[in-house]
Amino acid sequence: MAGPPVAAPAVAEPRIGPLPDVADRELKARVAWSGLAEPGDRIAGALVRALGPADALEWLSLSGDDRPVPWGPLEERVGPLPTAQRGRLERSVRRWATRLPTVEPERDLEVLTRMGGSVLVPDDARWPVGLDDLGDERPFCLWVRGVPDLARAWRRGVALVGSRAATTYGERVAFDLAESLGARGVTVVSGGAYGVDAASHRGALSAGGATSVVLAGGVDRAYPLGNARLFEAVVGAGGSVVAELGPGRVPTKSRFLQRNRLIAAGSRATVVVEAAWRSGAMSSAHHAARLLRPVGAVPGPVTSAASAGCHRLLRDGIAVCVTDADEVAELAGSAGCDLVDERVEAPRPGDGLDPVTRRVLEALPRRVPTDLATVASSAGVTTAEARAALGLLELDGSAVRSSAGWRMGTRG
Amino acid sequence: MAGPPVAAPAVAEPRIGPLPDVADRELKARVAWSGLAEPGDRIAGALVRALGPADALEWLSLSGDDRPVPWGPLEERVGPLPTAQRGRLERSVRRWATRLPTVEPERDLEVLTRMGGSVLVPDDARWPVGLDDLGDERPFCLWVRGVPDLARAWRRGVALVGSRAATTYGERVAFDLAESLGARGVTVVSGGAYGVDAASHRGALSAGGATSVVLAGGVDRAYPLGNARLFEAVVGAGGSVVAELGPGRVPTKSRFLQRNRLIAAGSRATVVVEAAWRSGAMSSAHHAARLLRPVGAVPGPVTSAASAGCHRLLRDGIAVCVTDADEVAELAGSAGCDLVDERVEAPRPGDGLDPVTRRVLEALPRRVPTDLATVASSAGVTTAEARAALGLLELDGSAVRSSAGWRMGTRG
Repeated sequence: MAGPPVAAPAVAEPRIGPLPDVADRELKARVAWSGLAEPGDRIAGALVRALGPADALEWLSLSGDDRPVPWGPLEERVGPLPTAQRGRLERSVRRWATRLPTVEPERDLEVLTRMGGSVLVPDDARWPVGLDDLGDERPFCLWVRGVPDLARAWRRGVALVGSRAATTYGERVAFDLAESLGARGVTVVSGGAYGVDAASHRGALSAGGATSVVLAGGVDRAYPLGNARLFEAVVGAGGSVVAELGPGRVPTKSRFLQRNRLIAAGSRATVVVEAAWRSGAMSSAHHAARLLRPVGAVPGPVTSAASAGCHRLLRDGIAVCVTDADEVAELAGSAGCDLVDERVEAPRPGDGLDPVTRRVLEALPRRVPTDLATVASSAGVTTAEARAALGLLELDGSAVRSSAGWRMGTRG
Repeated sequence: MAGPPVAAPAVAEPRIGPLPDVADRELKARVAWSGLAEPGDRIAGALVRALGPADALEWLSLSGDDRPVPWGPLEERVGPLPTAQRGRLERSVRRWATRLPTVEPERDLEVLTRMGGSVLVPDDARWPVGLDDLGDERPFCLWVRGVPDLARAWRRGVALVGSRAATTYGERVAFDLAESLGARGVTVVSGGAYGVDAASHRGALSAGGATSVVLAGGVDRAYPLGNARLFEAVVGAGGSVVAELGPGRVPTKSRFLQRNRLIAAGSRATVVVEAAWRSGAMSSAHHAARLLRPVGAVPGPVTSAASAGCHRLLRDGIAVCVTDADEVAELAGSAGCDLVDERVEAPRPGDGLDPVTRRVLEALPRRVPTDLATVASSAGVTTAEARAALGLLELDGSAVRSSAGWRMGTRG
């Protein structure tokens, strides 16, 4: 890291141990920040961006819960700070400082290593670059169990999100969409809840596809516990369980909402499969929309409150209506790629006819034959047009001529 | 009517009888035109616009199926016609002329009078002015059974359209929407088919609301016959049965499609309740969109092919997603009127809390109390913030203080 050195911390230094090289020092500092700041803390993100994670951590260590904030060393690096900004930063520093005694990056990394997990940081080639669009809300690091190359896995990732309290309909649609997406090599990204999340992972697994569970707490704890075996199956099948919080961290309401930004930013598109008027899945959709990522919503019966959130997204123009995996793939695809084929329906009788011939066909009596002039008048065409049309219709048996005149054939 | 006189017809004059006054002459000419030209015939509409209905009819009478078209008298009125235009008009003249022997306006008017019906023409105060937006595709007249003031009835009319082959879901939604719209004084406008059309009329009748059946054939024939009693009920309940074709005329495929333009143009908004990928209701939606009328589509299960047309309209951005009568009324309403109320949901625990207090609440242990510093660290707030939040939370029992520290209260 460039820049003048920052004074060594006096007390309350986090137990981050010796720092053998820069990469290791930066990694451990990022791990420490993931424990100090709440997910999505933009002020922490800005400080780390300005100083680098390790120097930002050293600077924070100069403050305690009650000691004066060391403005001098910071302003040497970033320039003078206006009073309002100092006020906001000081409040944040006080908050982070309450956690300084609790962060132990080496312990967290050890726990993860024992689980066979990995930690990704933004410079890592396996880092999912979509998260960089979060700016200062980008996570400090990612804790991963399973296949750690999220850059590859999420490049064609689609988020399938929805309510825990899903209906049979919602779970079926989630499963079917995930299965079809999995079959075409799209990675499904979702949370770890019951309902739409779980059905999506199961559908992807069923197709032998890759799927990622993004948790609001640490990757070492299955939440909800009832999905523990599902998470193991995801890891076992070449998928991943991902979190921005270290081992042992518990999910809270705000962490669930912040987790949704990772799902939205990490994926090419976010599809709300089934969501009530007020549902966490709505926040995923709004995160995706703010990031200018495509958002899809699967409609459902208007008589089902479980789909009211999807319909709201459609009404508000936030989401595009998607009804099958082709349309989801089109939503997530690059411009001009993955386009849905024009639907072709089975042709119907009279489909290929020009309007005049069709009118003549429709004007023919079914049983009692009639003369040319009456057919023309009934069809509203000239007698010459009627004569030509009847000639064509006679060829394939749609019109039948007899001494009494014209009537419809059996093909008509 | 102004303009130089047109030479009297030689032969094949339609049996329109004596013309006692201008209004009667114009009325009968319009009735004749409704029998000569197919619905939506723009060339007939333009000719009638240029000459007036009676003079246009007189001019047509100069031609037969094979006599030369009398360009002279026409060009005296409208100026010289380019060759291409002459060609198109001549073909139309030949078509109309095949029907000249069959139109009998007086007979048609007598039939209607015996049924207690009315004929409306564009100058009539009861004419639904929305149809004027059709330009040269405007119908020549309207045949009405029931309450003839369509100007009043359709001013707040909403078209509810959809498939004949509706599902139970589609029929239920149509009925419920129509019932709610009827209860708020909105006239339901629809066709006469089974399925969504019939369910819509029944829903309106159930609320004591007005409803209009727009037929593709004459108003004297119930098509389909199975809905004859429904049509009588509509007329009996202050509604109307409407057509642009005179008594005895049969519906054809192209007349059904043209009938849809009347439904779309006559209503403030068109809502497709349930429609398969390929359905006549889709043409109503496209007619409405071309007229810049609002279009709504009711979503349904993506597993139901019967809703695929609605979803297509949503995907293509032609229709707005509507799920209840409030949203339909908003769609059809004037700007700023009939807006849907912001939905208010029952508040949940913690709803009114600021983010810091909420985080403190979530950080409280459920059973074993803990000290202030741990609460602050766990919540990621300063000890001062934690202290203030706990004071607030203690007031309503969300937090409980004991000698061992703080824990969540029963309200939390």
